[in-house]
Amino acid sequence: MKGMNETIRTQLEHRTIREFKDQGIPEEVFDLLMEVARRTASSTAMQASSIIRVTDPSIKAEIAGICKQEYVARIPELLIFIVDQYRNSQIAKEKGHSPDYAGDTDRFFSSFTDACLMAQNVVTAAESLGLGTIYLGSILNDTEKMCQLLKLPELTFPVLGLGLGYPNQSPQLKPRMEMRLRVFENAYTFFDSYLDEIKDHDEEMRTYYDLREPEKPVDSFSDQVVSRLKYQNIKRQELLKVARKQGFDLKV
Amino acid sequence: MKGMNETIRTQLEHRTIREFKDQGIPEEVFDLLMEVARRTASSTAMQASSIIRVTDPSIKAEIAGICKQEYVARIPELLIFIVDQYRNSQIAKEKGHSPDYAGDTDRFFSSFTDACLMAQNVVTAAESLGLGTIYLGSILNDTEKMCQLLKLPELTFPVLGLGLGYPNQSPQLKPRMEMRLRVFENAYTFFDSYLDEIKDHDEEMRTYYDLREPEKPVDSFSDQVVSRLKYQNIKRQELLKVARKQGFDLKV
Repeated sequence: MKGMNETIRTQLEHRTIREFKDQGIPEEVFDLLMEVARRTASSTAMQASSIIRVTDPSIKAEIAGICKQEYVARIPELLIFIVDQYRNSQIAKEKGHSPDYAGDTDRFFSSFTDACLMAQNVVTAAESLGLGTIYLGSILNDTEKMCQLLKLPELTFPVLGLGLGYPNQSPQLKPRMEMRLRVFENAYTFFDSYLDEIKDHDEEMRTYYDLREPEKPVDSFSDQVVSRLKYQNIKRQELLKVARKQGFDLKV
Repeated sequence: MKGMNETIRTQLEHRTIREFKDQGIPEEVFDLLMEVARRTASSTAMQASSIIRVTDPSIKAEIAGICKQEYVARIPELLIFIVDQYRNSQIAKEKGHSPDYAGDTDRFFSSFTDACLMAQNVVTAAESLGLGTIYLGSILNDTEKMCQLLKLPELTFPVLGLGLGYPNQSPQLKPRMEMRLRVFENAYTFFDSYLDEIKDHDEEMRTYYDLREPEKPVDSFSDQVVSRLKYQNIKRQELLKVARKQGFDLKV
């Protein structure tokens, strides 16, 4: 492919790693990853996102419980990316100003976005160094408990977990639908039959070998969609409620 | 620095580019970037985010108006990353199921996160190919108008804009605070005086040369924080209201 380089080759090889070697990341590698996080784009350069590095095994175990993924307790390096408007609001206070709008909808979402960008930048850097990664959206299963566990003050909020380490498994590349179904020109594009359009993806997904349940045949993509959308995680509906408790003034 | 490689070198060199050469991106490069977007991690592999590629100059001009950044109209390649639960909800419907939960809080945020991760992955790939990038959080200045402009159906929502092209300027690297102020172990860490801790960052920011206003001295970071937090963009507070209009059942 024209334009291919090492960076992009790494990106195209991304897969989720759930089992890691029992070996930490060298501290200088960790520092380099944090330097990448530091240089990530940030809305109006406010740098209003932070990272909690979870090294305490008991906290890791609690997070594994929230995630309902036992292997989370064994992840060598566990990072929680957070919205952080607390730091800047303190800076404003120290300068004698009332940071009235630090918790508004706008700030909540710009910090949330910043935290995500930072996480993906760390993922790419880590993978370029031969590390494996796993995103843990499942930390949002109980945002209130996450806030308590990590002692998150007002104007902060958990966004995304990230596990890092040296891979101890080689999962297959996960099938993906064609991008013509996801990239549209100038306006949203509709298709007459989505089932027809994703036929190949549906088929390919059935041949995917899932290391989590190697004995079990994998559902087609459309069957996965149906079973996912049938199910609602009630606690996860409380995200914005908890964000309000954390001091964000979210208007709906 | 130990562990340094080309990928990380590119990431550490990130800066926002606002002026581009009057030259498009070759189509095969665009396709490669979309392949990177495709391979980005996605929550439960649902792939519930999409991209609108804006090529129509009149739509670009409208978006520049929303962003209040005139140069947006001149960006060679303009992408809008969106939450997209519409596609999967249609798939469920075609299979005879009612996708009751496609618009719940949980799905809104997992798609929002997916869209951000995809954007950052594209940024890193683009920069590794010598392209310049600019994030446009400013598309959220008027989410309702963005939805109309891009004809976004129910269960979709704009997240982030991204401009790409060959750079026609060489901005200085933007100062950033030290990561010890942003990376904490096991629990959120408080500091006695943030102003003391960011003294160097404050000072360094004053020496930053902003190409947008070369004549004007740049404020210290803490002064920027104060002036930003004094100001509230009223329309941007409506984000969740507009998301609700788009069919998301957000509970606060």
